[in-house]
Amino acid sequence: MKYFFLLFSVSLLGFSSLQAQKELPTQAKGDEAVIESLFKLSLTDCSAYPWLESLCKDIGHRLSGSPQAAEAVEYSFKIMNELGLDVTKQPVMVPHWERGEKEIAFFAADKGEKKLVNICALGGSISTGNEGILAPIIEISEWSELATLGREKVAGKIVFFNEKMPAENLYTFHSYGHCVKHRWGGAVEAAKYGAKAAIVRSLNLRIDDFPHTGSMGYEAGVDSIPAAAISTADAEALSAAIAQGNEVQFYLRQLCETFEDAPSHNVIGEIKGSKYPDQVILVGGHLDSWDVGDGAHDDGAGVMQSLAALELLKKMDYQPEHTIRVVFFMNEENGLRGAKKYAEVAEKSGQTHIAAIESDRGGFTPRGFHVEGNPEALLKIQSWKNMLEPYGLHQLDEGHGGADIGLLKTDENVMIGFVPDSQRYFDHHHSANDTFDQVNKRELELGAASIAALVYLIDQHGI
Amino acid sequence: MKYFFLLFSVSLLGFSSLQAQKELPTQAKGDEAVIESLFKLSLTDCSAYPWLESLCKDIGHRLSGSPQAAEAVEYSFKIMNELGLDVTKQPVMVPHWERGEKEIAFFAADKGEKKLVNICALGGSISTGNEGILAPIIEISEWSELATLGREKVAGKIVFFNEKMPAENLYTFHSYGHCVKHRWGGAVEAAKYGAKAAIVRSLNLRIDDFPHTGSMGYEAGVDSIPAAAISTADAEALSAAIAQGNEVQFYLRQLCETFEDAPSHNVIGEIKGSKYPDQVILVGGHLDSWDVGDGAHDDGAGVMQSLAALELLKKMDYQPEHTIRVVFFMNEENGLRGAKKYAEVAEKSGQTHIAAIESDRGGFTPRGFHVEGNPEALLKIQSWKNMLEPYGLHQLDEGHGGADIGLLKTDENVMIGFVPDSQRYFDHHHSANDTFDQVNKRELELGAASIAALVYLIDQHGI
Repeated sequence: MKYFFLLFSVSLLGFSSLQAQKELPTQAKGDEAVIESLFKLSLTDCSAYPWLESLCKDIGHRLSGSPQAAEAVEYSFKIMNELGLDVTKQPVMVPHWERGEKEIAFFAADKGEKKLVNICALGGSISTGNEGILAPIIEISEWSELATLGREKVAGKIVFFNEKMPAENLYTFHSYGHCVKHRWGGAVEAAKYGAKAAIVRSLNLRIDDFPHTGSMGYEAGVDSIPAAAISTADAEALSAAIAQGNEVQFYLRQLCETFEDAPSHNVIGEIKGSKYPDQVILVGGHLDSWDVGDGAHDDGAGVMQSLAALELLKKMDYQPEHTIRVVFFMNEENGLRGAKKYAEVAEKSGQTHIAAIESDRGGFTPRGFHVEGNPEALLKIQSWKNMLEPYGLHQLDEGHGGADIGLLKTDENVMIGFVPDSQRYFDHHHSANDTFDQVNKRELELGAASIAALVYLIDQHGI
Repeated sequence: MKYFFLLFSVSLLGFSSLQAQKELPTQAKGDEAVIESLFKLSLTDCSAYPWLESLCKDIGHRLSGSPQAAEAVEYSFKIMNELGLDVTKQPVMVPHWERGEKEIAFFAADKGEKKLVNICALGGSISTGNEGILAPIIEISEWSELATLGREKVAGKIVFFNEKMPAENLYTFHSYGHCVKHRWGGAVEAAKYGAKAAIVRSLNLRIDDFPHTGSMGYEAGVDSIPAAAISTADAEALSAAIAQGNEVQFYLRQLCETFEDAPSHNVIGEIKGSKYPDQVILVGGHLDSWDVGDGAHDDGAGVMQSLAALELLKKMDYQPEHTIRVVFFMNEENGLRGAKKYAEVAEKSGQTHIAAIESDRGGFTPRGFHVEGNPEALLKIQSWKNMLEPYGLHQLDEGHGGADIGLLKTDENVMIGFVPDSQRYFDHHHSANDTFDQVNKRELELGAASIAALVYLIDQHGI
């Protein structure tokens, strides 16, 4: 990695010389100096970490429709204002689901001792009712097995989806993509065969005691049955008990409930473009989180990194040609209502989004960007490789932009996903282990600088 | 990052087809398939993590000369034997220093309240005696300030070296290199001006409560005075108290002691080369650790990754042409005696070391290798770039190999340092925070595969 020979006090001189370099914006040397300064500034004078700390520790997790989500909107509005952005709160109605009392679950084989297990209701699940559900449990690893078993062997039972995330994928999101269907659709598939509830192995590559929640859905015409995730350690124990051959009874009780949609907001801040005010470069993530842990990596890190990218550019007195806008989307986790509302309003605004960058893969050490759009945009970003590689941004590949920005895609523009290292993400994702102390300050700050550098290059050179 | 389309069950077929590919060892396609298999195998069937768990949790930290270091030697010998390597224990005499009772330290300004602070004696320091040392403390950020202050202002006082690790370096080891002289030589410099003790800010980029130990030295003809590290949070508090302007008294008590040198061992295992048995490719790290935490990242991760590299090659039935040797060096931390003994014996053996790879920068996600040697060797390694980059190994640069292998360097061979991501290393280094739970299993395993891949390429193509 590139060694900064100069200390920061010296590099401050570099910042004033940036003023001169701005007169030569397309000169490669100028770009390199700006990017170097953005990275130094991010590691020495960046608010991403303290902002994230307040969000996580003063407010905490913030599921759409919750009082904490409303607090998070106010806090975001406040810090964007303090940064001197033009800020708006964009109203949007969001789903409102509550977990209720802590879940209880255990299993017992052949009248043996009860083993308590860690579960959490999947988001959107119905309640079991106060008495809970006690039924024999059957294990499958892939829902196609339901058809083989048939209604006869499934009806009246609880179905345990125990597919393990494949460990051999280097990029852990590929393993997630492989398994998430059981979390999302397992309850519907099991209900088609008369099951009473669905238990899904947590989407976690480690063996530990944290159950991982996440969205699930129901289907018209199919009975709605309760669904919950079980920790990987307990999934292993349950599987071992079932493997003994005796019938295993499983009990779960969860009192979750869906309420009327609730009012909430996207929070939007911007620096108006000096030359192309109606051409927007968007950066963002989602402000809502699941109702466990702090929502630190998912996606407190993403929103605070995005805002910090604007902070860094402002601290360097950078005057963008295009409008640079940060959006804290509401309700990515269970509805994407914020993303839909934003896209709907944007379409009518007469503005165009030339690029959108989403950070929603954790606050880990930067690796690069995934680019979704016309091949020329990818080639253009790859042409900046020499300027990005010294900062660990080697992966400039075709790939998914992000859920919140997906609706903004056109034939002309480009959607970009910030890609941090993925190895640790599923240790935390949607679980009580997604806490502020699990975010490394420097890794978070390097992400902010990575996003700022890309925004700067797009603003200077178009895309 | 490269997507493995195949699941592991399918890739097993890939392993058998490796047998065929070995007949075409220099063919690029063959190499790529072998490397892909090494990485998959590392993520699905590798012992690095359980070995590290035993080392950290059953044995714990293992300073040279301690009973735990002796236990670690036996454990290492056992697992190398179980792996089917040719194993030897190479005797070496090592320093034996003990920390003694937990240190006590506090400060108080102007007869104000005492504030207890977290310190730990630096390795090799003398004791303060049972009564401890109470004296006024003066703060400096760079030892050149001692000459400016002069003996008059330093004599009889405790000197507080409060140089902060510069945050702006991307590669954190550069910041370490910048500051480590105060830990190593601060006591000598302060003693030259009549100081009674030296307190050094911990080499940590975070603000937290963990003091970080590490080696220090004394100089003939200069008084030996006690030296200790203070946590970064307490360094900040102490500095703030001193900044108030009133005299601050500092007290420390540490009962450390240096004993006679003790017998210990390097542990060495190897797979004999089929074609060039006297040409050695060495991989390794150091088995000893400081006497705080578990020595998990420093350097339990490094030794277990190195051994796992041989495990992976063996599991693939790979028959090397050169001898592949793993060395667990003893006493890197406070003497390098194991490295010296190994080099001394190696020189007389008639064998040559064509390459040596050291892993001693933590068990984090892989980034590449630093190469120390003739420029042709670096060019050769860089010619393998396309095969290494899909696994996140982008940094193939000139740089430091490692402390333990440094003495093996000749004009012909190459010393290589495995480079994991450096952002989190100094959160743990030499502190009670260097524990097993801070190592991510996948990151550790990817390091093992990275080392195995490079060993394979060197064995196949020379260097």
